[in-house]
Amino acid sequence: MEFDFQALDRIFHPRALAVVGVSNRLNNAGVMFAEANRVLGFAGPIYAINPSGGEQVKDFPTYRTVREIPGPVDHVIISVPAKFLPEVIADCAEKGVRSAAIFTSGFSETGEDSGWELEEKIRKIARESGLRIIGPNCMGIYYPAQGLGFRSDLPQWEGQGNISFLSQSGGLAFSGIFLGQRCGLKFQKVVSYGNETDLSSHELIDYFAEDPATGIILVYIEGTRDGISLARALIRAGRKKPVIVLKGGLNEIGIRAAASHTGAMGGKRPTWEAILKQAGALQAGGLEELIETAMTVNRLPAFTGRRMIMVCMSGGVSVNYTDRTADWGFEMPELSPETTKKLRAAFDAPGTSVKNPIDMASSYINFFIYPDIFRALDEDPDCDIIMLVFTMEYYIYAERFAPGLVDTTVSAFIEALKAVRKPVVVVCPSVVEEEKRNQIQQTFLNAGFPSFLTIDRALKALSLTRQYHSKKGSPAGRDSRVP
Amino acid sequence: MEFDFQALDRIFHPRALAVVGVSNRLNNAGVMFAEANRVLGFAGPIYAINPSGGEQVKDFPTYRTVREIPGPVDHVIISVPAKFLPEVIADCAEKGVRSAAIFTSGFSETGEDSGWELEEKIRKIARESGLRIIGPNCMGIYYPAQGLGFRSDLPQWEGQGNISFLSQSGGLAFSGIFLGQRCGLKFQKVVSYGNETDLSSHELIDYFAEDPATGIILVYIEGTRDGISLARALIRAGRKKPVIVLKGGLNEIGIRAAASHTGAMGGKRPTWEAILKQAGALQAGGLEELIETAMTVNRLPAFTGRRMIMVCMSGGVSVNYTDRTADWGFEMPELSPETTKKLRAAFDAPGTSVKNPIDMASSYINFFIYPDIFRALDEDPDCDIIMLVFTMEYYIYAERFAPGLVDTTVSAFIEALKAVRKPVVVVCPSVVEEEKRNQIQQTFLNAGFPSFLTIDRALKALSLTRQYHSKKGSPAGRDSRVP
Repeated sequence: MEFDFQALDRIFHPRALAVVGVSNRLNNAGVMFAEANRVLGFAGPIYAINPSGGEQVKDFPTYRTVREIPGPVDHVIISVPAKFLPEVIADCAEKGVRSAAIFTSGFSETGEDSGWELEEKIRKIARESGLRIIGPNCMGIYYPAQGLGFRSDLPQWEGQGNISFLSQSGGLAFSGIFLGQRCGLKFQKVVSYGNETDLSSHELIDYFAEDPATGIILVYIEGTRDGISLARALIRAGRKKPVIVLKGGLNEIGIRAAASHTGAMGGKRPTWEAILKQAGALQAGGLEELIETAMTVNRLPAFTGRRMIMVCMSGGVSVNYTDRTADWGFEMPELSPETTKKLRAAFDAPGTSVKNPIDMASSYINFFIYPDIFRALDEDPDCDIIMLVFTMEYYIYAERFAPGLVDTTVSAFIEALKAVRKPVVVVCPSVVEEEKRNQIQQTFLNAGFPSFLTIDRALKALSLTRQYHSKKGSPAGRDSRVP
Repeated sequence: MEFDFQALDRIFHPRALAVVGVSNRLNNAGVMFAEANRVLGFAGPIYAINPSGGEQVKDFPTYRTVREIPGPVDHVIISVPAKFLPEVIADCAEKGVRSAAIFTSGFSETGEDSGWELEEKIRKIARESGLRIIGPNCMGIYYPAQGLGFRSDLPQWEGQGNISFLSQSGGLAFSGIFLGQRCGLKFQKVVSYGNETDLSSHELIDYFAEDPATGIILVYIEGTRDGISLARALIRAGRKKPVIVLKGGLNEIGIRAAASHTGAMGGKRPTWEAILKQAGALQAGGLEELIETAMTVNRLPAFTGRRMIMVCMSGGVSVNYTDRTADWGFEMPELSPETTKKLRAAFDAPGTSVKNPIDMASSYINFFIYPDIFRALDEDPDCDIIMLVFTMEYYIYAERFAPGLVDTTVSAFIEALKAVRKPVVVVCPSVVEEEKRNQIQQTFLNAGFPSFLTIDRALKALSLTRQYHSKKGSPAGRDSRVP
């Protein structure tokens, strides 16, 4: 099938929606979809289709079938048992619906012949009519700028996000959106596409690659029925934008798990890795890595160097963290006499160290020196990346004498770091008072600084981000630091 | 020096304490130590030594020097500038003090000749008098059963803990204690020993190996001045108890960082790894791993098998997690017809899967089936380990219709899991509502089930625990599941 940007773009801009399988039953999935689009602000009509009687559902205009709706309907969300699907899809085709997202599961992912046959049947109807099917076994579209979504608690904001996410799994689409929200990612378009019976991953990747509003493409994929086209689409997209991929089903048992999840036919690990490498795509090992790498690519200025300077408040952590940086391919250069001199001018108490890693020790409490420290590192020609390790052990104790100290210090760090032009990341490792720790990390995130729970997660995201910039000349896909 | 258990044991059982360097200045470190021992419930007298005038500090009996104290003093904590140390140590020796923990830094870790000389001077006084020195550049002893500690917010509880921890870093001693508290670890004795000028890591390891109250030995070490003795002590201890080691300074830059932290002379990575292997010690890669492995060794029944069955509520996560298990050397066997049948009898809704990983999907909401599910896995002869992956995405939505659902479900899982005899671990990955997630993880931890934020952390801890049981016949060091 020839790729047609406009045709796909129309799927994301329906005039009216219908949800098939809506009832007044508590926790009815159809109502969840109908309400989600209303809460997210979809501007056109939202029709409810209640096939079991047409009884009015909440205040949605309710009908028994899609055909009975008086006006035009461009996009339909379907949540009825699998056996009713051929009839509903035929209705949609007859009505002239452009696209249908099918939530219903029980198709090819069951591994049973009946599931495959049912899926083949609806594909045939779609192909003959021009109706595009998303799914089945998926959550469909989240496009906050148009008020489209699959759950009413999905994030909303003013203006448009720049991250688009294509997820074969509905659960990972959710989780990715929520994790992304914590990390300050604003999503442009998310598509959970499930069993890929018609609308395929390669079409969506081509679409996101062309889409001017998409800056970074995230992909969770378990497998596809057209590996060649997928590979080509990834390579095309990789020429234009950062593409970050989480592959589900990398080994025999993972592939088996994927097959029973979305009916996907997964390829072998080396094949995938070769394709991703050729595409210049970054391979994440898990959902956290996918989202945190997007955050890091999005927030940091371009860098290709490996030389890191680490600012710590606890010697023990700094030694272990220094080991980890080397394990991940980064370098911790010895500081030049000039930088050492500048740092010693800023702080000189016993127990502090102005070697790399820098140990502020008890001097952490003097936030007047923060600008001097980070300016010295920003000016150091042998420093590519600055890492702040924010450990709370001593703060918590000192707060007894100075309530509010932690928040003041975090604000002072953020003010000092805002003046830095080099890439800065923050690690907030867990200790005691997990809620406070989480709040501190969130404050750094909200200020636009990539922040991580563990050193390994920070280093993995930095490593992938560096890999991206080392391959490409231009730092496409970057948003600004301050959200 | 011959190892003398009784002599070392006396250090942990002083009749009276003195803290040198106490003043009425806000945030004075000496007061922190004095108050810590009082709050933790030390039964004997706690004297304050205020060398700059002898002015009374709070309600502690205050003197100008240790020599002026009327009664006996067995253990002294020292927090005065480095240059005063020889005099203070000479006073202690004259007074007949058994042991001194020196908080002061500015010795060999500075890398300067004056620091080395000062340290040599106090070592000489100590060796001549029989006074044992812990440190300098350390936090000293935390032994809650005797009310000894270095900060008043250190955890306390009824009865004795079974984990002892030897940390060259004071910061990591803190962090390890606090992290351990979250993980439900109860510490027996913790020693932050810093520059190791006198009392050495190998003596402490020998002591913990003999100590009947110590079930598991944790070690954070950067380097030592007597590598042969340390290696021998580790090997001796490894024959008796689980020993889990975090080595700080594994490569050139890490070793450099360690040298400026505790003045430690670190060996090369292959040497360390060979010693740890010979000792049967488990090597943790970071503090979280050290603590989480201790938790897992402590809580789980012995196991040597690799076959895991995973229970999930979200298909996307389950596929990725299945990949990860294989990466860490575990197996996810296909379920037997018998187990499959039992599971299908428990739940059969569309979207669920009774293959391994088991995807409860929408059936998660029916907590009446949990006992049936876990009983089936417990009875399955092809299952060595059970992993529950607790994802919250759907719960959060369903709570709108059923407030309290999440807590009810967590309790129901815990009740069902309590009947399981096989090793069980729980993964609570982060999504939205981090505070709620953290609280859920804490509830599983409090119920005695090793619980983790990420699959990789769970698999690493399981992998090390399995390594321990595969080497040793007996599951020494195990506490009970329910705390």
